[in-house]
Amino acid sequence: MRKVAVIGVGNSKFGNRQDVNVTELAFEAVKPAIEDAGITPKDIEFVAVGSAGAGAWYEEALPAVITAEYCGLTGAGLVRCEAACASGSAAVFTVYSAIASGQIDIGMALGLEKMREVDTPTVVELIGRAGYYLWEFHNFGMTFPAYYAMHATAHMAKYGTTEEDLALVAVKNHKYAAMNPVAHFQKEITIDEALSSYPIAWPLKLYDCCPVTDGAAAVILASEEKVKELKIDTPVWIESIGYSSGTGNLSRRDTYVGLKSSVIAAQKAYKKAGVGPEDIEVATVHDCFTIAEIMAYEDLGFCKKGEGPKLLREGQTEIGGKIPVNVDGGLKAKGHPIGATGCSMIYELTKQLREEAEKRQRQVPLKNYIALAHNVGGTGHYCYVTILRR
Amino acid sequence: MRKVAVIGVGNSKFGNRQDVNVTELAFEAVKPAIEDAGITPKDIEFVAVGSAGAGAWYEEALPAVITAEYCGLTGAGLVRCEAACASGSAAVFTVYSAIASGQIDIGMALGLEKMREVDTPTVVELIGRAGYYLWEFHNFGMTFPAYYAMHATAHMAKYGTTEEDLALVAVKNHKYAAMNPVAHFQKEITIDEALSSYPIAWPLKLYDCCPVTDGAAAVILASEEKVKELKIDTPVWIESIGYSSGTGNLSRRDTYVGLKSSVIAAQKAYKKAGVGPEDIEVATVHDCFTIAEIMAYEDLGFCKKGEGPKLLREGQTEIGGKIPVNVDGGLKAKGHPIGATGCSMIYELTKQLREEAEKRQRQVPLKNYIALAHNVGGTGHYCYVTILRR
Repeated sequence: MRKVAVIGVGNSKFGNRQDVNVTELAFEAVKPAIEDAGITPKDIEFVAVGSAGAGAWYEEALPAVITAEYCGLTGAGLVRCEAACASGSAAVFTVYSAIASGQIDIGMALGLEKMREVDTPTVVELIGRAGYYLWEFHNFGMTFPAYYAMHATAHMAKYGTTEEDLALVAVKNHKYAAMNPVAHFQKEITIDEALSSYPIAWPLKLYDCCPVTDGAAAVILASEEKVKELKIDTPVWIESIGYSSGTGNLSRRDTYVGLKSSVIAAQKAYKKAGVGPEDIEVATVHDCFTIAEIMAYEDLGFCKKGEGPKLLREGQTEIGGKIPVNVDGGLKAKGHPIGATGCSMIYELTKQLREEAEKRQRQVPLKNYIALAHNVGGTGHYCYVTILRR
Repeated sequence: MRKVAVIGVGNSKFGNRQDVNVTELAFEAVKPAIEDAGITPKDIEFVAVGSAGAGAWYEEALPAVITAEYCGLTGAGLVRCEAACASGSAAVFTVYSAIASGQIDIGMALGLEKMREVDTPTVVELIGRAGYYLWEFHNFGMTFPAYYAMHATAHMAKYGTTEEDLALVAVKNHKYAAMNPVAHFQKEITIDEALSSYPIAWPLKLYDCCPVTDGAAAVILASEEKVKELKIDTPVWIESIGYSSGTGNLSRRDTYVGLKSSVIAAQKAYKKAGVGPEDIEVATVHDCFTIAEIMAYEDLGFCKKGEGPKLLREGQTEIGGKIPVNVDGGLKAKGHPIGATGCSMIYELTKQLREEAEKRQRQVPLKNYIALAHNVGGTGHYCYVTILRR
């Protein structure tokens, strides 16, 4: 199997981006990624676009085609990947496989989503369909805050996790988002503000939920031969990608205090990379809701099951702690443009591993230069875990 | 690069399948494919689902998740691939790359589409969005019959192609569909019936257009090591997959008498496989409209540009001719469940290369056992060409 490296990354400003259409938004990520890699659009042989809401919460049915055209990539092989909120990681996996197999030397994963063309109740309804639509959505009216509220209450009941613990995730991630120029939210919040924000689905309050965000992120991958030919200074190698899936029907899950697909995807990724959770020095995890970050700590093996809140309270997931998590603000505060998120995680970790995190105080101190991205689709319907090493 | 073979195929009955939901339809393809391969669902490490209309012309937003669950595949890596009408081929490419790279040994590409849950005008409108939506659809009201009518009039103007030539494609493909138990249409038609059918978008009449079809097809791929371990009698090897893309905006195309993305995808596939068009003994090509089959003959190099009608008139694309094309009935008469089509093409060619075509008179005589599948998305927005060899 050929080695594959990240050689260029770009990230649009995340936020309410009604100032641009979807192709212009993509361009904001593609242009800097191409410049970063020191290549031209014509060098890119295959493009995988991660986007979940094409034709639903934004109008264009074929975003891969029109963004490729706008960015000068027409002629390359093309596909759109949908793995719900893990669509960006699925796009990375597709391009990674194409290069690792020897079919191509340079490819691009482009994650993008325009979510704010419809109002929030509509987008929440559309996202809510991404469960077992005919069963849970139609019969029970489940939407995603409700799904993750179930996870939260299960975790609280079994491990004594508190509303304050959930709020701590929000406070941490807002703190880092305030230092991240691409983040949707640029302000810190206090634990009191989080706890007194209005209820969405108990115990989740407004500040426990990621926002509805527009954004794009691009990741250019290349073979080892190409890395040498292009004289890339600081290639960031993809050591492995693990993946798994979960049932659509939640009543068929063994447990609600974690996501089995996260556990399996992580095990696969660790095994292929020959590392363990103790080797990871910086991670981006899928914190669509605050409880999801706590479950991820446990599912990824950063601590034992049930000890996520303790890890958090001790500050171990902040910079300076044992395993800094979501120091870009996470989905919670950087924002979660669904298809873009997986690519944006790789953008952040590439910047971290190159020691280029925008402001000095956002740079994680590194020794072994190993990082992990954890990207979940739905409530564990899909999961991809990617391990990177400089 | 590791060798990859097709080891199992399945195809649901194509047609108006309001008797089943999408998971049941998928099962009709997955079950025989798994039995054909002689494996169990748990052996499948990764599943790529080709489907374009999820959440649009059928309700389920995450068809990959729920079909995986229904077919016992939960836990495998999972992604849905969208490349418009080439989604099935994109799914094959994804699984092929994952195996060729050495990441997995067995994977499945599952193409599916439920198109008849909405009425025909609605589905035609939704498909029509798969151009440059904000430009051509909104401003000019273009839908796909209109797009391909433009191709037809261009071909007629430049090469003297006639309405009778178009009708000949329909007559040929209906003839073979009548012998294919999975085909949507099981009846032959005459050239007079084709020519006197009602106009859709001149010169295209009803019988020049593929139907709106429900269907699913599954293709199981495996590494060479696994082929040996499983003692597969007649593996069908994927020699190469070529791909390309075209502009969304048709005003930026150089020509209307063919699809540049088909030409480039074919050139890539021929080069990688080390064969030429003269080596192909049986082909499935993307005949969403009759003119598309004629353009494909030319774009794939089965004849010179402009000589497609001659090749057809001579009967060279029938069984017994130089290069039999769409002897399963093609999209035109077997039907075109959008995401399923690419996988169904591989189903047909695998059966042909194994000399298992259902009825004796549908089996193409083979010498070198080389076949080609040509799958287009939109009007050449995407193209995948796959070359198979037994």
